Amino acid sequence: MEIGMVGLGRMGANMVRRLMRAGHDCVVHDANPAAVAALVAEGAAGAASDAEMLARLSAPRVVWLMLPAAITGRIARQIAGQMQPGDILIDGGNSNYRDAVDLAEELGRAGVHFVDAGTSGGVWGLERGYCLMLGGDAAAVRHIDPILAALAPGRDGTGAVPGATDTAPLGYLHCGPAGAGHFVKMVHNGIEYGLMAAYAEGMNILARADAGDRPAAADAETAPLAEPRYFRYPIDVASVAEVWRHGSVISSWLLDLTAAALAQDAKLTDYAGRVSDSGEGRWTLQAAIDTGTPAPVLASALFQRFTSRDEGDYANRLLSAMRHAFGGHLEKKG
Amino acid sequence: MEIGMVGLGRMGANMVRRLMRAGHDCVVHDANPAAVAALVAEGAAGAASDAEMLARLSAPRVVWLMLPAAITGRIARQIAGQMQPGDILIDGGNSNYRDAVDLAEELGRAGVHFVDAGTSGGVWGLERGYCLMLGGDAAAVRHIDPILAALAPGRDGTGAVPGATDTAPLGYLHCGPAGAGHFVKMVHNGIEYGLMAAYAEGMNILARADAGDRPAAADAETAPLAEPRYFRYPIDVASVAEVWRHGSVISSWLLDLTAAALAQDAKLTDYAGRVSDSGEGRWTLQAAIDTGTPAPVLASALFQRFTSRDEGDYANRLLSAMRHAFGGHLEKKG
Amino acid sequence: MEIGMVGLGRMGANMVRRLMRAGHDCVVHDANPAAVAALVAEGAAGAASDAEMLARLSAPRVVWLMLPAAITGRIARQIAGQMQPGDILIDGGNSNYRDAVDLAEELGRAGVHFVDAGTSGGVWGLERGYCLMLGGDAAAVRHIDPILAALAPGRDGTGAVPGATDTAPLGYLHCGPAGAGHFVKMVHNGIEYGLMAAYAEGMNILARADAGDRPAAADAETAPLAEPRYFRYPIDVASVAEVWRHGSVISSWLLDLTAAALAQDAKLTDYAGRVSDSGEGRWTLQAAIDTGTPAPVLASALFQRFTSRDEGDYANRLLSAMRHAFGGHLEKKG
Amino acid sequence: MEIGMVGLGRMGANMVRRLMRAGHDCVVHDANPAAVAALVAEGAAGAASDAEMLARLSAPRVVWLMLPAAITGRIARQIAGQMQPGDILIDGGNSNYRDAVDLAEELGRAGVHFVDAGTSGGVWGLERGYCLMLGGDAAAVRHIDPILAALAPGRDGTGAVPGATDTAPLGYLHCGPAGAGHFVKMVHNGIEYGLMAAYAEGMNILARADAGDRPAAADAETAPLAEPRYFRYPIDVASVAEVWRHGSVISSWLLDLTAAALAQDAKLTDYAGRVSDSGEGRWTLQAAIDTGTPAPVLASALFQRFTSRDEGDYANRLLSAMRHAFGGHLEKKG
Repeated sequence: MEIGMVGLGRMGANMVRRLMRAGHDCVVHDANPAAVAALVAEGAAGAASDAEMLARLSAPRVVWLMLPAAITGRIARQIAGQMQPGDILIDGGNSNYRDAVDLAEELGRAGVHFVDAGTSGGVWGLERGYCLMLGGDAAAVRHIDPILAALAPGRDGTGAVPGATDTAPLGYLHCGPAGAGHFVKMVHNGIEYGLMAAYAEGMNILARADAGDRPAAADAETAPLAEPRYFRYPIDVASVAEVWRHGSVISSWLLDLTAAALAQDAKLTDYAGRVSDSGEGRWTLQAAIDTGTPAPVLASALFQRFTSRDEGDYANRLLSAMRHAFGGHLEKKG
Repeated sequence: MEIGMVGLGRMGANMVRRLMRAGHDCVVHDANPAAVAALVAEGAAGAASDAEMLARLSAPRVVWLMLPAAITGRIARQIAGQMQPGDILIDGGNSNYRDAVDLAEELGRAGVHFVDAGTSGGVWGLERGYCLMLGGDAAAVRHIDPILAALAPGRDGTGAVPGATDTAPLGYLHCGPAGAGHFVKMVHNGIEYGLMAAYAEGMNILARADAGDRPAAADAETAPLAEPRYFRYPIDVASVAEVWRHGSVISSWLLDLTAAALAQDAKLTDYAGRVSDSGEGRWTLQAAIDTGTPAPVLASALFQRFTSRDEGDYANRLLSAMRHAFGGHLEKKG
Repeated sequence: MEIGMVGLGRMGANMVRRLMRAGHDCVVHDANPAAVAALVAEGAAGAASDAEMLARLSAPRVVWLMLPAAITGRIARQIAGQMQPGDILIDGGNSNYRDAVDLAEELGRAGVHFVDAGTSGGVWGLERGYCLMLGGDAAAVRHIDPILAALAPGRDGTGAVPGATDTAPLGYLHCGPAGAGHFVKMVHNGIEYGLMAAYAEGMNILARADAGDRPAAADAETAPLAEPRYFRYPIDVASVAEVWRHGSVISSWLLDLTAAALAQDAKLTDYAGRVSDSGEGRWTLQAAIDTGTPAPVLASALFQRFTSRDEGDYANRLLSAMRHAFGGHLEKKG
Repeated sequence: MEIGMVGLGRMGANMVRRLMRAGHDCVVHDANPAAVAALVAEGAAGAASDAEMLARLSAPRVVWLMLPAAITGRIARQIAGQMQPGDILIDGGNSNYRDAVDLAEELGRAGVHFVDAGTSGGVWGLERGYCLMLGGDAAAVRHIDPILAALAPGRDGTGAVPGATDTAPLGYLHCGPAGAGHFVKMVHNGIEYGLMAAYAEGMNILARADAGDRPAAADAETAPLAEPRYFRYPIDVASVAEVWRHGSVISSWLLDLTAAALAQDAKLTDYAGRVSDSGEGRWTLQAAIDTGTPAPVLASALFQRFTSRDEGDYANRLLSAMRHAFGGHLEKKG
């Protein structure tokens, strides 16, 4: 079927490619003409503007936005303003699910259907398929089923648990009314932060398992390693990541990627350890707090990222100042 | 090759079966004669005692212990006392890695090799293979390679990351000197706790995403839900678990099992939520603390389990007492 | 000076008493006539309605609201609607500081000054004085200075740090523009949660320091206490709380209250351990998340309260289900 | 009475001074002769060696050790070896309480009493008195009561909670058998870490309350501040610390010191934020883990210190590597 795609970055461009492979007709638009040209060369129809894109689509028109969260609302309203009743606007980006609730209500008044499509898969989605979590009214989600089926992994060999009666085993799911798709994707990313932190903390413990063989400061400001003889392991973290992929309880796709990264450079010399966070982890925590749901692991994972970027600096200096104030402790130099 | 197996519980019995399938000769012993008889019926040689088991094995004898951590040390010493120089004693249980360091030193004085074999795979290991993490001297680990290769998954279709030059892609790895195997397995379990908690917290947020549709107390002791309209999702958690298995960043073997459990009973009515912990999570934290390694996510996951068993009860009552003391707040009944 | 007080609960009534002691004229109103009558008997002027209260005050009229957060906005707008330019409306309740930002803007258009007054002191404020954190325009805050000085502790014998040039040493402070007072009070309560949790966790460890003398389960689902000989202390927690009040680094007013509560009943048999939270702790975390500020301790303290009320129940049951799924572990009964 | 003091650092020297003020006879020894000479000038009897110190004391001899944890065990055994049955050796340092259990047993075989004295008060103890937590047999603790009473604050004006029947209101307490004193002091420090972190995190939120006025990066790797208008507060953190000292729920001695430090330099330019930890926080966590007691707040506070010293570096770099692996995200430069 026909679909317009707006936003041809890392994610959007590959989604167009996967849709074209499945035989869908894609009209593409991006603020950057080169991004449009690249996909036109691969068979897409290019559009120099929103209006041109909409003009090239037949009714009911289906448009998928794949844009940074910061500009999605503005572009969504701009495009919806040019749409007809019955048209469908999909937001596949990492937007706050609350925006979807508001947008769906607003667009619904003009008869335009809004579908929020939480999209997971990263740079691997082109080959592996995208996991899609949908929110919106059932008819609209049903209408775009061919698009969803093409983007999702489909029967990917991982099997389905017995008893599934919906499309979940194919890698896409209508999760509920407007916002439900982004809500589920948001929690997905919250979990992702937690999983990543669990691996990272564990592997850091492995990387430091030779503490007993390293020289230690012997001053009053340093807690000595009580029993160095139990910490004499120069663990090959890359090999451990690899072995865990095979038969262990903690095997996962994230571990597969981690093992691959460590096989290339177990010392991770390319990274400084300033870890970004892009919104969903924060919103997950806010949803947890709003609903009174304990989420200490997800919170720790998020705060770890803040801390990695030195956002805790003033707090740390205050701790040193307190130690000096009550105990006369001078701060140790690094 | 020949191997003696002591401890025929859930794990030990299945390991014997997997070894026999690969053509190894197993002499088995357990305090419970019925457990021995069951495996004899499947082709193993039974032994009524340690001594009998050792007598049936040729030198250098290889014995694998698969026992509860609480009794492993005692049985290990008892069997090692009957061994000859060059014999190999393997502990595949969930023992503290420090015990392996001590045991290896002790047994080494009598010429007996000690190998610690961290074993992951649970009840699925019989079919899927066991992920094995080994510690001990290289010659001993090399000698038992056929055993390890048979227990491990081998070429399991998950591929190996390029560049691996050891046995990690086959699902077993010599991690270092005595204790290294149990150390790596310990951290594996620490990570496992973190992964499990990340999924559990996230899914709890999903399960409570309908908070805006549930009646809320409206008293001064209850923080009201600020914007109920954003929490009106009756999410089908089982379907979400299933869809995440396909193409998402958080797909994993644990998620496969979780989806299967939720497909059977999404309300989890069989469980009361008192979560056990069996040692490795604690030891992981102790290693983190000893080496000054931050592990907030792993710690939160562990403490969550303690809390689930009401171990924080006195602390909570003290908090209510404090609130009453400074603010006159009366504790709300549940 | 003259002041109207609306909301004569635990806090409001005592604040009126403290103001009257200092010679201020109070016109009081509450939805509950009995609360009004009680203060009239002590010398206040009673008002049966907002309108009556306003009529009894001279311009510029000063009205202080001491109401539950849930109704503050509505009542504030209702009263402000009857005010004149130059009048001052103060919210001393535990409102979200964002409401103060919005209200100040809204009321400001009609020339009414809005002051947000974070108020700490609890049931002890009558005698001890209230710590007041103010937000709003400087002229309005200056106008109500006599009120603030009367409510605050004043020279309370705790001294001032050298160099203070504002009213902070007297126990009240103009913190910044609208919302700043409630913002600072919000963070105050976030810190309060953290302090309380630190004491509660520590005292729980003391209360359980006799673990080595208590019978322990000896099954595979229970991690055994490694060295019982180090846990044979039947600590008198009440006496410890008392001794820490004298000369220790952790002496505090909260500890004073805690010691008093424990002196009455060290077993805390009156409490079930379901700990309420009333909003500020949540908003503190949201501010931390919004600004990318790590706050793991404050988050843990908040989540502990959620957990104490069984809000983590589904997560815990899911953990037990996972353990059963991969390891065949049956959940232990409590 | 007579007492020997070994270890004349920051703590030991001031304790000698406080003892002499109360009329006790102090024989002092330190590896550094200058430290001995300084106290001799103030009236103490100096000793050039352990042996000389012991020779100058009458039986039963009382010796107090105030040494770094790392050397306490060795010196304690060296001195005890020269003692007679009935003599009393006291360890007032920050030793692991387990050492006290072991030492008491060992010394007890030779008839020497061992008392562990957890000591809090820091550089302020000379004037304010030291809070003392004692472990050991009752007779020995009773024997040194005059020493304890002199070191402790005594009637310090903070009053006693009604009902106290022991010495807790005077600032010292016999907590239980050997090790109980250091155990209680250990938990005291664990709590101290938690309190400090609660203040530090909260004040960091205040220090960043102007986030809406600071320029923010606007790229896909940075979560934007959703509503800058709510974060426009240039809070004077020093004044806030001061105002909280007067009448608020979170007033404390630590806050007094914090306010004083901030009054001197609210920007804390003298500190780099590398926060040391000296053992007790770690041991508190280990005791919590051993006894299955949840302590998420104390753990977060401890890990925050580790993180402040970059001990989480490898974990953070691994997180960035994972983000690159699944999403193609490039790490942002600081």
